[in-house]
Amino acid sequence: MKLYDLPPSPNARRVRIFIAEKGLDIPTVPVNMMTGENQTEEYLDKNPLGMMPVLELEDGTCISESATICRYLEETNPNPSLMGNDALDRALVDMWHRRMEFELLDPIIKIFVHTGEIWKGRVTQISELAQINKVNVLSRMEWLDKELIDREFIAGGYYTVADITAQCAFVMAKAAVDIHIPAELTNLSDWWARVSSRPTARA
Amino acid sequence: MKLYDLPPSPNARRVRIFIAEKGLDIPTVPVNMMTGENQTEEYLDKNPLGMMPVLELEDGTCISESATICRYLEETNPNPSLMGNDALDRALVDMWHRRMEFELLDPIIKIFVHTGEIWKGRVTQISELAQINKVNVLSRMEWLDKELIDREFIAGGYYTVADITAQCAFVMAKAAVDIHIPAELTNLSDWWARVSSRPTARA
Repeated sequence: MKLYDLPPSPNARRVRIFIAEKGLDIPTVPVNMMTGENQTEEYLDKNPLGMMPVLELEDGTCISESATICRYLEETNPNPSLMGNDALDRALVDMWHRRMEFELLDPIIKIFVHTGEIWKGRVTQISELAQINKVNVLSRMEWLDKELIDREFIAGGYYTVADITAQCAFVMAKAAVDIHIPAELTNLSDWWARVSSRPTARA
Repeated sequence: MKLYDLPPSPNARRVRIFIAEKGLDIPTVPVNMMTGENQTEEYLDKNPLGMMPVLELEDGTCISESATICRYLEETNPNPSLMGNDALDRALVDMWHRRMEFELLDPIIKIFVHTGEIWKGRVTQISELAQINKVNVLSRMEWLDKELIDREFIAGGYYTVADITAQCAFVMAKAAVDIHIPAELTNLSDWWARVSSRPTARA
């Protein structure tokens, strides 16, 4: 088994943290998007959309989509649980995971893509879209701060894949588009201190 | 159990089709977004993001996110399987389901939101974004046509949630933004004929 990896990508990082939290040892193969390594015929056979990460199984089957890779690893390595312990718990973790994907990670990636130097000439950058997403992300942080008033982690009382995705979103926000968690959002700041100090946070 | 529903929404429709394919009988409660029924305090208690659909369980627990609702219903009502039969099959269905969400449904909704009369004044419409998404959707249809060359359904040999999401995306494309499957994409057209003639297609 191996993981085709894009080291700075928040999507790849969430899979690496998930693997580290599970205590698994899966070799990674970095794929350099900037030199087009993800557009070779060989790589497109693994993922026709040319995106990373991809988990390649022993028989050559390739699984793409970060959340799908996590789900497969959860099912084949249930302990420690990172995606819920029964049908309802799994539903609530999944709901929170998707909220973190759509309300935080996706708009933060869009801000980066629509403003970043590195994307100039590769995509049509729309600065108005980046601006709208920036406003939305700030408002979602305020919402999340209120949600965290009475619990330690995003989906409830224990660390899950929803925390992993949110923490990768905030790493990118800070490093790539200069958006930081406002100090007055104390519940969110406390959550951030808890998750970013885990031994797996730099996976 | 009841489903808070937005009848014309492709997200709500995919849950309704999923429920119909499972043979379940879950009453629906329509929520009128245009008159702000999704912004009342009572509704925001069910989903703080104000979106539909939401599945309310007997004990009052609310599950939002269409894919999460389908997953919960799959786990509690396994037959017929619509999300895979073992860990690897579930991973492949999930991968294809996410591709249909991100590569088709999401851009089609964006085209509608950024061009539709009904959204004027409610959001900042960026026509350039709609145009980019239109080009992307057409290119994804060509890709999907090639993928369907040797199989009957999106994720493999049987009908799954990935087909449901793709068919709801195409219903919206046709009805709301006048994008149709090009006749020369014969594999995709044949797939469309197969899925749109199912008894559940108008759920």
